[in-house]
Amino acid sequence: MKLLFIGDIVGRAGRRAVRELMPAIKEEEEIDFVIANGENAAGGFGITNKVAEELYGYGIDVLTMGNHTWDNKEIFDFIDDDSNLIRPYNYPPGTPGRGYGVYEVESGIKIGVVNLLGRIFMDNVDCPFRSLEELLPDIEADFTIVDFHAEATAEKIGLGRYFDGEVAAVLGTHTHVQTADEKVLSEGTAYITDLGLTGGVESILGMKEEEPLKKLTTQLPQRFSVATGDTQLTGVIVELDLETGLAESITRVREVHLNQ
Amino acid sequence: MKLLFIGDIVGRAGRRAVRELMPAIKEEEEIDFVIANGENAAGGFGITNKVAEELYGYGIDVLTMGNHTWDNKEIFDFIDDDSNLIRPYNYPPGTPGRGYGVYEVESGIKIGVVNLLGRIFMDNVDCPFRSLEELLPDIEADFTIVDFHAEATAEKIGLGRYFDGEVAAVLGTHTHVQTADEKVLSEGTAYITDLGLTGGVESILGMKEEEPLKKLTTQLPQRFSVATGDTQLTGVIVELDLETGLAESITRVREVHLNQ
Amino acid sequence: MKLLFIGDIVGRAGRRAVRELMPAIKEEEEIDFVIANGENAAGGFGITNKVAEELYGYGIDVLTMGNHTWDNKEIFDFIDDDSNLIRPYNYPPGTPGRGYGVYEVESGIKIGVVNLLGRIFMDNVDCPFRSLEELLPDIEADFTIVDFHAEATAEKIGLGRYFDGEVAAVLGTHTHVQTADEKVLSEGTAYITDLGLTGGVESILGMKEEEPLKKLTTQLPQRFSVATGDTQLTGVIVELDLETGLAESITRVREVHLNQ
Amino acid sequence: MKLLFIGDIVGRAGRRAVRELMPAIKEEEEIDFVIANGENAAGGFGITNKVAEELYGYGIDVLTMGNHTWDNKEIFDFIDDDSNLIRPYNYPPGTPGRGYGVYEVESGIKIGVVNLLGRIFMDNVDCPFRSLEELLPDIEADFTIVDFHAEATAEKIGLGRYFDGEVAAVLGTHTHVQTADEKVLSEGTAYITDLGLTGGVESILGMKEEEPLKKLTTQLPQRFSVATGDTQLTGVIVELDLETGLAESITRVREVHLNQ
Ligand SMILES: [Fe+2]
Ligand SMILES: [Fe+2]
Ligand SMILES: [Fe+2]
Ligand SMILES: [Fe+2]
Ligand SMILES: [Fe+2]
Ligand SMILES: [Fe+2]
Ligand SMILES: [Fe+2]
Ligand SMILES: [Fe+2]
Repeated sequence: MKLLFIGDIVGRAGRRAVRELMPAIKEEEEIDFVIANGENAAGGFGITNKVAEELYGYGIDVLTMGNHTWDNKEIFDFIDDDSNLIRPYNYPPGTPGRGYGVYEVESGIKIGVVNLLGRIFMDNVDCPFRSLEELLPDIEADFTIVDFHAEATAEKIGLGRYFDGEVAAVLGTHTHVQTADEKVLSEGTAYITDLGLTGGVESILGMKEEEPLKKLTTQLPQRFSVATGDTQLTGVIVELDLETGLAESITRVREVHLNQ
Repeated sequence: MKLLFIGDIVGRAGRRAVRELMPAIKEEEEIDFVIANGENAAGGFGITNKVAEELYGYGIDVLTMGNHTWDNKEIFDFIDDDSNLIRPYNYPPGTPGRGYGVYEVESGIKIGVVNLLGRIFMDNVDCPFRSLEELLPDIEADFTIVDFHAEATAEKIGLGRYFDGEVAAVLGTHTHVQTADEKVLSEGTAYITDLGLTGGVESILGMKEEEPLKKLTTQLPQRFSVATGDTQLTGVIVELDLETGLAESITRVREVHLNQ
Repeated sequence: MKLLFIGDIVGRAGRRAVRELMPAIKEEEEIDFVIANGENAAGGFGITNKVAEELYGYGIDVLTMGNHTWDNKEIFDFIDDDSNLIRPYNYPPGTPGRGYGVYEVESGIKIGVVNLLGRIFMDNVDCPFRSLEELLPDIEADFTIVDFHAEATAEKIGLGRYFDGEVAAVLGTHTHVQTADEKVLSEGTAYITDLGLTGGVESILGMKEEEPLKKLTTQLPQRFSVATGDTQLTGVIVELDLETGLAESITRVREVHLNQ
Repeated sequence: MKLLFIGDIVGRAGRRAVRELMPAIKEEEEIDFVIANGENAAGGFGITNKVAEELYGYGIDVLTMGNHTWDNKEIFDFIDDDSNLIRPYNYPPGTPGRGYGVYEVESGIKIGVVNLLGRIFMDNVDCPFRSLEELLPDIEADFTIVDFHAEATAEKIGLGRYFDGEVAAVLGTHTHVQTADEKVLSEGTAYITDLGLTGGVESILGMKEEEPLKKLTTQLPQRFSVATGDTQLTGVIVELDLETGLAESITRVREVHLNQ
């Protein structure tokens, strides 16, 4: 049983990377289930129904989100109807959409997917540790996969270690830079601090470098636009063990599609 | 001409990693010059003269620092006398110590080393972009190596790209998690977002996991203590090109020393 | 029925202000109950049992706290035994001490006191709005007084207005600067954004000005020490209406005791 | 010689307060010069040329700004041509507009006006202490008035005390809540931590309370709109002493205009 989890898809370049690169990975690696972080899928900010459908069309099973969930206002129109779209669970009760879902793979195996938001240098959401601890008993699944969308490395590693042995994987997103610390922790949970960027290679976090550089050097507000050119898909492949409900291995993925 | 730059050394475990792992790397890779980030070298918080001397004794040529520079008050006693210790350059004028140095390798080649602090989610220091831009003409060296000690990936990538072609390397530190994005940028500057942790493998950023986890879940203040057990050395090796003053290659290093 | 609520008491100078100035205020204004914020009462950082007893001895009935609650480690020894000491309610479940208390005034009237911490630019605690909403039905009292210890004015005014008509008073603490916006809101809740500083007049937030100024201009860590000299008591007097359980009036207090 | 400095003007309600309340204040108090913070004058976010002209038409001589300077993109079209509009001085060199100005009052007296931005919980601008220290020798004026637009009370009081005796006034803006700590410091500088809100009385910082409350309780993004109804003008009157170039007195102003 093999899972592919793809890091933050940024705009058109990110969607192109999925379209061009994912089919071969799925086939070669015999992937059973694909999750991707889609919080920047529409122009770098949020997601629309059309973009979500496009990504499902390419073969992504579930999309997770993050602090950019609400950037595109269209989401309020369809989030309650899209059962494959998961926004951070630790928003207050009553938040539109769902914070986790359980999905059945062809074989009948059930995969629970949870999205959590960090709090350090982030928004004022509920405690991700307590939220997940209270949620876990409700997830009736063979494997639970957590996308922890957070900034601070201490918080991410902390959550991974805190739930080591209790979930199949804690996979970090948000920084748009893939980390090299992927590992199955001692109790069996697959962990990586960040899956990285799925989008334009020559960019700053998937955006054209000019505007972020102007912002960094002038402190004046800038509109950011999605980078074009060569694009990459980053993520991990996690091998899951049906007997334990935990992970056997975690392998980093980074593929580049040249723009010719 | 080959440079080894080692990521944040955390406490005794980190120093042990240097002692046990660095000699072989230096020999096998024929390293000419070693720089390491030492802001957490003394018990995880700051550095002492004794610890600095210990690290120089192992064969480190220059130590850079970061936001933890002043954690151990002893530093004020020796920082002005230790010409191999570089604290962030973009502190205000009049700050003790030096923000850059130029060092002569045996061959007569001169290496400039600059330490810069990021501002996003960090302290209120001077603009790192402007600081470096103004400093560069003063650095009389064959190669300039920048340790950019920062949190936000956008700021780190931004600085790397802004100075692409102007310095030999922009290497990130501070997050204690090695990133997998090492690369020679298009104009010849070696770049990585973070060199990672040199210290205890089973840890949260080099500290025993209990206290950070308690802090994360209770929000109560905790004393942190350095992790023991297996230890790792992380960093990069940068090949430098004397003709251009830029980088030919950048390769990630991660070695583990088992505690037996 | 009249309540005096005193702003953050900072160190010895703050305690002296209470000792020298409070008795006359209590007598002249016929105060029935006194609450004070004591998070900086011991040397500017936290509180000790001895300092708490000293303040109760001067006639303070209840002490509230804030983000500095745990600065002095002694608090863990006595907080569970001191029923007049209230720490922020919206720390996680299991936090030592209590987040609210109900106190009987001589006349048999019951006053509920709640301490809440803000989240904007503050620690990662539970949502103060939701916490208070869930707590209110449990408070069996004639009046409920809330000390909202927070930084951002929007969060403080927001909480005041959100609970307007539901509690007798929402009184802000933490900034150590008294605001001039005291008012009974339209549904009957007494509100002020900040009660201000009880401590040294010639100071920065109650501390000698040299060290904070050094910190602000050098960014180097400094030890702060409590200011001496003239001292002030700041706070408000709230007149409570037994029929409604709400406020009739709120009046700012600022008295200075010259150090001769 | 008397100066009126008006706190952050928020939207139409704030401009109405200026129109309806300022003429009487100017006449009764014999005001010679009026400065106002205008960073929220256009719909709560930034300023337009039309709004600036409207405010000058009511008798405001100089407008200062803050962290919201660039919210309305129109400002880039006219800021370089409007010599009465002052944006924070401690933005990087090359920022459009000017960070200070010197204005001649009818009597020939020259008033220097400086706008500075704080850094704590704010943007990454240059050090306000160093910026002002370096600027002061260049200001050829009888009096220098500083609008310190900042969040943290320590930074505001710190700057006031640091420049006590060097400028005629350090007046805080940004929190939209007037503080009650106005005072002439020991060396002659008039100081207040915040001038407060000029705008709708029944509001959260000048905005209708519904949206900020929704933001605070749901963490979802909200559009804010300017409050209507009764409106207030807040600020201070500073009496200046030509012999010393410093302040004789500082008096808080708060006037309400009922909406009938
Ligand atoms: Fe993202
Ligand atoms: Fe994100
Ligand atoms: Fe570090
Ligand atoms: Fe650091
Ligand atoms: Fe305080
Ligand atoms: Fe506080
Ligand atoms: Fe404002
Ligand atoms: Fe502002």
